[in-house]
Amino acid sequence: MSGRARDLGIRIGTLQPGPLNAITDVAGVRVGHATLIEGARTRTGATAILPHGGNLFRDRVPAGLAVLNGFGKFAGATQITELGEIETPILLTNTLATGRAIDALIAHTLAQPGNERAVSVNPVVGETNDSRLNDIRAARPTVAEMGAAIAAARPGAVAEGAVGAGTGTVAFGLKGGIGTASRRVSVEDGVFTVGVLVQSNFGGDLRIDGRAAGRGAMAATDGSIVIVLACDAPLGARNLTRLARRCFGGLARTGAALSNGSGDYALAFSTARGGVERLANDAMSPLFQAANDATEEAILNSLLMAVPMQGFDAATGQASQVAALRLDPPSG
Amino acid sequence: MSGRARDLGIRIGTLQPGPLNAITDVAGVRVGHATLIEGARTRTGATAILPHGGNLFRDRVPAGLAVLNGFGKFAGATQITELGEIETPILLTNTLATGRAIDALIAHTLAQPGNERAVSVNPVVGETNDSRLNDIRAARPTVAEMGAAIAAARPGAVAEGAVGAGTGTVAFGLKGGIGTASRRVSVEDGVFTVGVLVQSNFGGDLRIDGRAAGRGAMAATDGSIVIVLACDAPLGARNLTRLARRCFGGLARTGAALSNGSGDYALAFSTARGGVERLANDAMSPLFQAANDATEEAILNSLLMAVPMQGFDAATGQASQVAALRLDPPSG
Amino acid sequence: MSGRARDLGIRIGTLQPGPLNAITDVAGVRVGHATLIEGARTRTGATAILPHGGNLFRDRVPAGLAVLNGFGKFAGATQITELGEIETPILLTNTLATGRAIDALIAHTLAQPGNERAVSVNPVVGETNDSRLNDIRAARPTVAEMGAAIAAARPGAVAEGAVGAGTGTVAFGLKGGIGTASRRVSVEDGVFTVGVLVQSNFGGDLRIDGRAAGRGAMAATDGSIVIVLACDAPLGARNLTRLARRCFGGLARTGAALSNGSGDYALAFSTARGGVERLANDAMSPLFQAANDATEEAILNSLLMAVPMQGFDAATGQASQVAALRLDPPSG
Amino acid sequence: MSGRARDLGIRIGTLQPGPLNAITDVAGVRVGHATLIEGARTRTGATAILPHGGNLFRDRVPAGLAVLNGFGKFAGATQITELGEIETPILLTNTLATGRAIDALIAHTLAQPGNERAVSVNPVVGETNDSRLNDIRAARPTVAEMGAAIAAARPGAVAEGAVGAGTGTVAFGLKGGIGTASRRVSVEDGVFTVGVLVQSNFGGDLRIDGRAAGRGAMAATDGSIVIVLACDAPLGARNLTRLARRCFGGLARTGAALSNGSGDYALAFSTARGGVERLANDAMSPLFQAANDATEEAILNSLLMAVPMQGFDAATGQASQVAALRLDPPSG
Repeated sequence: MSGRARDLGIRIGTLQPGPLNAITDVAGVRVGHATLIEGARTRTGATAILPHGGNLFRDRVPAGLAVLNGFGKFAGATQITELGEIETPILLTNTLATGRAIDALIAHTLAQPGNERAVSVNPVVGETNDSRLNDIRAARPTVAEMGAAIAAARPGAVAEGAVGAGTGTVAFGLKGGIGTASRRVSVEDGVFTVGVLVQSNFGGDLRIDGRAAGRGAMAATDGSIVIVLACDAPLGARNLTRLARRCFGGLARTGAALSNGSGDYALAFSTARGGVERLANDAMSPLFQAANDATEEAILNSLLMAVPMQGFDAATGQASQVAALRLDPPSG
Repeated sequence: MSGRARDLGIRIGTLQPGPLNAITDVAGVRVGHATLIEGARTRTGATAILPHGGNLFRDRVPAGLAVLNGFGKFAGATQITELGEIETPILLTNTLATGRAIDALIAHTLAQPGNERAVSVNPVVGETNDSRLNDIRAARPTVAEMGAAIAAARPGAVAEGAVGAGTGTVAFGLKGGIGTASRRVSVEDGVFTVGVLVQSNFGGDLRIDGRAAGRGAMAATDGSIVIVLACDAPLGARNLTRLARRCFGGLARTGAALSNGSGDYALAFSTARGGVERLANDAMSPLFQAANDATEEAILNSLLMAVPMQGFDAATGQASQVAALRLDPPSG
Repeated sequence: MSGRARDLGIRIGTLQPGPLNAITDVAGVRVGHATLIEGARTRTGATAILPHGGNLFRDRVPAGLAVLNGFGKFAGATQITELGEIETPILLTNTLATGRAIDALIAHTLAQPGNERAVSVNPVVGETNDSRLNDIRAARPTVAEMGAAIAAARPGAVAEGAVGAGTGTVAFGLKGGIGTASRRVSVEDGVFTVGVLVQSNFGGDLRIDGRAAGRGAMAATDGSIVIVLACDAPLGARNLTRLARRCFGGLARTGAALSNGSGDYALAFSTARGGVERLANDAMSPLFQAANDATEEAILNSLLMAVPMQGFDAATGQASQVAALRLDPPSG
Repeated sequence: MSGRARDLGIRIGTLQPGPLNAITDVAGVRVGHATLIEGARTRTGATAILPHGGNLFRDRVPAGLAVLNGFGKFAGATQITELGEIETPILLTNTLATGRAIDALIAHTLAQPGNERAVSVNPVVGETNDSRLNDIRAARPTVAEMGAAIAAARPGAVAEGAVGAGTGTVAFGLKGGIGTASRRVSVEDGVFTVGVLVQSNFGGDLRIDGRAAGRGAMAATDGSIVIVLACDAPLGARNLTRLARRCFGGLARTGAALSNGSGDYALAFSTARGGVERLANDAMSPLFQAANDATEEAILNSLLMAVPMQGFDAATGQASQVAALRLDPPSG
């Protein structure tokens, strides 16, 4: 019954996606999930994104963080902004699990060969609040379960919907979760790939490729979204931050309420290492368009690929509306 | 032939506008235009927004500035951010006229009774680049013409389209210009008005209330937008900055490309003076929605109210497409 | 042999300190330490600062964060900046213990009566790297040890030097640690108290009240400092952030190298609750002076009150130089 | 009677200056002054700093701006931050002359061969308030006088004290003005030069190389400082911004009050063009030390080289105290 936006005829923008239409279209990027569905109360998990398969602590990647609404517990923020790079995998999880995610990233880093003398690590953790479906006070995922998400990371197709850090999230009053998309763009004499992965857990008045799908009602506006963008263009931290900021264009176009309670973060990194800014400012616009469009489509995928779910505090994730939406004639 | 969005059946969001559906619905706010259309080469002007009709230098208003893309010459930015207030009218004009706008605001301030000993003034100037239709190197508006915009400011209905600072601007490849809209919102035990005025001069793939109106093509993506938001809610600088940031949601929903060359600024002020933050963070979401929706509608008004124009460097402002758009069945 | 700066005749600036010359001169503020000195390898700990003795999650205090060098793992940064408040105690600890400090603050908050339904908590954690004296990879303090620091918090005199989060820190190549100081200032018609507590762990060319004490050599420049400022003036987040920024003036005056590896953070909060900015910008200068001077003196206290220490990786904390410094004739 | 700090035996820090001990030790950098002393009321001027002698609009240099206190009218701020570069000379002048400085920079840029089609220019203007000695409301310097400062720019020794933009400024209750200094530093396998030029106009309790020279009294705390740093190290905007931030360390060490009314800005640019960050974060510390020390010495030079001055509103610039200071035995 479920399908990705593109399978349903929904095509956001005019740029072409990569072969997987996923963040893993950026060569080297790996994604892993730990999904926890237990009894009536546990609906949570973690998702790890690795910029490459090597030792990130020794082979850092340039990165930039954009914050639309800082109502969130994003770990690593000030150091990313200051030094323009990340040195650990990125973990997404629930709001009260940030400390354990940090511990898992430190354990992972200290244990890697070559890091025997590491005494300072900057873990990168994004989170949204899954307490409508999950008993968030029950301290899951554990540090070990976070580690399992890192260990599970691999290239290739990415599971979407109610998986990993999206297991218990809700968006637009529907079941949200993990979604991904990608775009290929020509810039100067190169072709680059931009990939986006989102953890959707926010509200608003849903628009699918512009068409009103939310019936004019603001649904469950609080919550948050964490957006992770990968690219292989040779960008430094400043232009990666600018690129991250364009993800919020795609977010807004889905009808997001951008409410007080929605912590909205976008982290962009480049796999073209060295921190060297080799593209001019003037060359950025096609990449900006890719960020905008891939984010919009990744959010739609997070909704469309999610299965309904009974949970802790909420009667349902109301995925039935999603099915109805699918019956609308495709846009474009 | 022209009409405002709402006259054409286009209603953005569910909140109600104020009686004028204009920034001047916020009591005390005044707007004035200086419009310069001369020969084949001069298509420019200035627009003044006054938070109140008194002595702004002595009776400052709290304000916050949000910058989505700082590729612009906005004057006054660092002091607004630091001190959380503005002390002059706001002038919008063209990119190369910022210095003269500063001089006009200083002259205005020094000349006001009560300011005889003023020796430091922080002029607030926004600008976009009207060089497609205007010979921008020709140094118009003059300081005196800027002063005329300030002097012309008054409450009541606001002229839109190709007037004032919007005389020579182009948006989505169409004639852009000045647009305005407002919303009334209930917050806690009060009803507040949010008004927005925009100077539109950017590109993208136009969406009118979500419907694709741009035919899938990115039109003339560079340019800029300056958004000015007025409200009468008792907000301090921090929450005004957050409110300003939500204007970019409305911008994104029009299909703005958010390109490298588009300097995108939103300035919010409150007429509820004293700098006292009396609304809690939790109360902000309805105001955020109003900022989002009023900005989207103000941008549409800036397009729909603009008449075609021949200019300096561009063959036309292609307003004919606007007419075609009007023929579509209204949304909602 | 040890003594506070003022006992040694060193008086920074002209303002008078409060009765304790400590952050706890700000009524309501509580400080607690957990000090871990075990075997040859454990020299670490945690220090908790509580703005008041009630339920912080329900009775938040306005706060502002200033970052001179974001090379650090400060937890809670984006939410403090966005919402202008803190809702948990502040914990200081070592770099690799941030995750456990977060968990301790969440546990503390969830367990407090009245917070039974809390599902989102923004823990505030500062850290510096004590790995020269401490086996930082050994995962101490534990979550329980962090909790003990919170539980130990009380008003009154504050232990300084090699205690709590300062147990293993090194500054200017000397033993650093925890230091505190306060100032009383008259502003408009009120008298307010500004208190500062620091965790010193940085390097440079030490100056004691301006006099060269470091012999012209840059000592061990990397490391970090976390500065916590409390005041009872009715300030909102914007002016608290400005106040926090002035702490860096006092830091610079001690001869701090401000090197790449030194993450330098200052967090200011007000116990005058409500988030209402009742002092004008113009009234801030005396408070700024207090922040500057109290920080300089708190850093000196952190050095002067620290006892020498053998540790994990460094031969010594070289406190003998401190003794020599004390023999110099007092300044002023 | 006057002399530079170093001539008086005052040596800040341990690094060596370049041959001129001036910002012009950075190859290519040019400085020009326009000094206006007329009748009893005009004590003002402008100072131009050119990163190189070519066409800056076509051959931009990477730059970063740090703001300690944004109470100022610095022009160009948001675009420098966004695009990480400057495209015009830097003009320093008085607070109410910012508009005319902008116009002068636009006129200069439009008139340069090769810029015939330029329609967007980001003028960079810093200012401080010289109204104690100058009739600032009288609209001097004119646009033409600003242009003269640009035209006068050349390499070589830099006039200091009461010249150019420092003609009417006051610092620590003494006559302030323009000061400059430089440092040479070894970083990795290169030797780089850092040069600083300041326009000093602030207050505090003066310390000369740490020694109390202000007699414990806060003198005339309001005012401002603009600091311009040039270097030839291959830095991008992010590390230039970090470098600019370290100038505030030198400012604090002079005893600056960092008061509410003191707008404190530091702009750093690199003449190693291309925007490419070729130095690692880890290599920055020696450059940070140079920024810190050169700023402290440049401020002292601005005081020590200034001659007393009668002016508009203030009885005198009290340079007599400077003479007294010179009689103290040199430090170090």
